[in-house]
Amino acid sequence: MRITEPGVGFVALVTIEVDGPQTQAALLELMSRDVEAWVRHCPGFVSANYHLSPDGRTVVNYAQWASEADYRASFDQNPDKARMREAIRTFPGVSAGPTLTPLTLALSIGAPDPRPVSPGPVPAP
Amino acid sequence: MRITEPGVGFVALVTIEVDGPQTQAALLELMSRDVEAWVRHCPGFVSANYHLSPDGRTVVNYAQWASEADYRASFDQNPDKARMREAIRTFPGVSAGPTLTPLTLALSIGAPDPRPVSPGPVPAP
Repeated sequence: MRITEPGVGFVALVTIEVDGPQTQAALLELMSRDVEAWVRHCPGFVSANYHLSPDGRTVVNYAQWASEADYRASFDQNPDKARMREAIRTFPGVSAGPTLTPLTLALSIGAPDPRPVSPGPVPAP
Repeated sequence: MRITEPGVGFVALVTIEVDGPQTQAALLELMSRDVEAWVRHCPGFVSANYHLSPDGRTVVNYAQWASEADYRASFDQNPDKARMREAIRTFPGVSAGPTLTPLTLALSIGAPDPRPVSPGPVPAP
């Protein structure tokens, strides 16, 4: 699978550094609650995808939106914006962030079809 | 669309800081050439997804793999690994990186169905 979709024109990559797995889990709960409550209902929202690093130190949200304008509008139109960001920034165990990297998907390359289904020798380039 | 897929057990998030849009484009060409040539043929490879920031300063690859073991093995088994990383690190205009953040997808939240199709008032939480 590739992660392309015609309707996604903007990706908000949000990174947060934390002190360990317990904070990762608590932060995931906090962030997803807000997304479930109101962010996912905003026009142009496509998906929020929460990732954790195995070392327990990082939380990453890869969020897909129709456009950057939709993303910005979702915050401008909602009074919870400042509260949400501040709640993350001051959450116990958060050492850095949230840091936003605005992105657009430029190129997606998938596995060849048929894809390898089990470990084996790597074909020569 | 959400970016979940049963076959994806590992995400390699690779970030590179550069000096502008021309370096973004040249780096995209360099990186995608290696992926097309050999990385996509490795067992466990699902997709490489190259993103650019609108300000011209960042290149992000969101790469999906079946497992972290597959990801590591793809490099261990290929002599081009060190060359590829060094080529990116020393590429003219690259100011930082490549930085790898190993991740696993923990939670994916999509838009409600039916999703909003045009701008309108945000429903109350």
